[in-house]
Amino acid sequence: MKRSITIALDCMGGDGAPQHEIAGAALARERYPHARFLLFGREETLAPLLEQHPALAEASEMRPAAGVVAMEDRPAQAVRRGRETSMGQAIAAVHEGEADVAVSAGNTGALMGLAKVMLKTMAGIDRPALATLIPTYHGESAMLDLGANSSCGEDNLVEFAIMGAAFARTTLGLERPSVALLNIGSEDVKGTETLRSAAERLRQTDLPLTFAGFVEGDKIPFGIVDVVVTDGFTGNVALKTLEGTARFIAQLIGDAFRSSLMAKLGYLFARRGIQQLRSHLDPNKHNGAVMLGLNGLVVKSHGSANPEGIATAIGVAVDMARHELTKLIAADLATMGTGRAERAGKIGNDG
Amino acid sequence: MKRSITIALDCMGGDGAPQHEIAGAALARERYPHARFLLFGREETLAPLLEQHPALAEASEMRPAAGVVAMEDRPAQAVRRGRETSMGQAIAAVHEGEADVAVSAGNTGALMGLAKVMLKTMAGIDRPALATLIPTYHGESAMLDLGANSSCGEDNLVEFAIMGAAFARTTLGLERPSVALLNIGSEDVKGTETLRSAAERLRQTDLPLTFAGFVEGDKIPFGIVDVVVTDGFTGNVALKTLEGTARFIAQLIGDAFRSSLMAKLGYLFARRGIQQLRSHLDPNKHNGAVMLGLNGLVVKSHGSANPEGIATAIGVAVDMARHELTKLIAADLATMGTGRAERAGKIGNDG
Repeated sequence: MKRSITIALDCMGGDGAPQHEIAGAALARERYPHARFLLFGREETLAPLLEQHPALAEASEMRPAAGVVAMEDRPAQAVRRGRETSMGQAIAAVHEGEADVAVSAGNTGALMGLAKVMLKTMAGIDRPALATLIPTYHGESAMLDLGANSSCGEDNLVEFAIMGAAFARTTLGLERPSVALLNIGSEDVKGTETLRSAAERLRQTDLPLTFAGFVEGDKIPFGIVDVVVTDGFTGNVALKTLEGTARFIAQLIGDAFRSSLMAKLGYLFARRGIQQLRSHLDPNKHNGAVMLGLNGLVVKSHGSANPEGIATAIGVAVDMARHELTKLIAADLATMGTGRAERAGKIGNDG
Repeated sequence: MKRSITIALDCMGGDGAPQHEIAGAALARERYPHARFLLFGREETLAPLLEQHPALAEASEMRPAAGVVAMEDRPAQAVRRGRETSMGQAIAAVHEGEADVAVSAGNTGALMGLAKVMLKTMAGIDRPALATLIPTYHGESAMLDLGANSSCGEDNLVEFAIMGAAFARTTLGLERPSVALLNIGSEDVKGTETLRSAAERLRQTDLPLTFAGFVEGDKIPFGIVDVVVTDGFTGNVALKTLEGTARFIAQLIGDAFRSSLMAKLGYLFARRGIQQLRSHLDPNKHNGAVMLGLNGLVVKSHGSANPEGIATAIGVAVDMARHELTKLIAADLATMGTGRAERAGKIGNDG
């Protein structure tokens, strides 16, 4: 029998909160019958919603929280209010071992701030990173960091590669994901000194990943590698540019099909193919950014996620919790440390 | 009468060289009857091609060059060979005042290296930058830097904003373009200290531009601002991600229309709209990256440009030369300098 997974869900976070959160949890409950839910939020609004989903109600426990972190709140404000809010309480539940993973569609900065303060960074990790899955031609790739760290050193990039590979193993089910550093050329001489040193280090690892060198931005959507590693500034710009371009082209496609009666007729015929295309790119099917490198698991859903999107984010949370992602990362860090020590010893013996 | 513009065309650069270069120049000759051409390359291959385009031949002068810069040549190699190559000679023609602007579809690094060494950076500019026009929902926006400078300071970003605005004035015909810095959030507090200081300086300029603060990656394709300013690493990643995503979705659209007989029928009906969409995104209609900040004008065409693409790049070159972009930038730098001195004086008087 599968071990039950407990999800701490901040029900007050997203644009459609709490309706989308509750409907999304109900959907996730169908998909993951072993999942249990701690629902954080205002009891008076959650209770009537929960009544509409008896199966979810049965697998859930209500956890009243009076405070809500607003989208415009500064991270420092959110941290000060701490457990007064549904977001803070959801993370606290992970910290205290009551839940395996927290999920929130709320304010990203506040969530990262609260998670860092409450869960603390793992031993061996300098800075946590935000990772997500993105749709590619063949399936999905993982990308990190997406904005937790504006500038990164060599150590950070190496740690992101280790954490990203572990994330791809748990969410994409890959045994040995391919990992590349995002760069402005694929040749070894391209990019910054930081990137070149990080590449050199990753080439020598004994970890369960295949280091594929450098990858350029235009290759990301084609899924050439399983994990794309970059600093938080570049990753944030790349992800948003990718999302914006997809939205922009979707709008152009819509315009094209509305441009004439003939085109409208064409849409009717091609509808199935077009709907598959839409579904392939639907952000709600690729939802759930993950804070990696903390002593505990936290998933950030898009603020605009619909119930399907919330369920997808909960799915990512279930995958990570089931595979005990935090332990995987810790083990890989240990291997990395041993490898480094061995190599250092060898060099010593040679000299 | 319009002043004639002389284009120094490296005919040996791109993937389709020299056929695409000559056919592209012939197309440009039709569009810009006042343009004249210096054609650099191997005479024995160019002469028979030119015979097919009598109107171009009449407006052209052949300039034999034995050497060709290969795509895999390192910039330093290209610089050492200098005027032996068609690329080097085209740039030398600009330096010596024989041509108003050089155009090449060859090796980007070599072109930037040769241009910097031969033309030298303008007084008042710390580092030149690579700019291009990108297709947006409403038309086109300019973006820079695209890879000339991996890391940039506050001064560089301010100079890029000035040069980018002048570029938008000449190529997009705008009187007072809106300019924004690419960032990971639109709030004033987001991003690096470098970005915040550059924003502060741009807010105080008296230049012919409207500073619009920060813009995020997802807004680029929607043309929210006329000029997007960023460092060369981020700009390169953003541009390539945008191009890759557009190509990826075009592929999905193709798949969608091939997915069934009904879909194929749908394509027939919607063809006109779809072709408009394709044409809107066609890289050959948005071709021509410009080296800004040198004592002379150089345009880089995509290596994969077809004749239409080469003609588009020559069009960008004509616009810049006609409006004497280099002088515009010099004048704006002078205004900026005066403004700074005045403000400094004021602060002095106050104290």
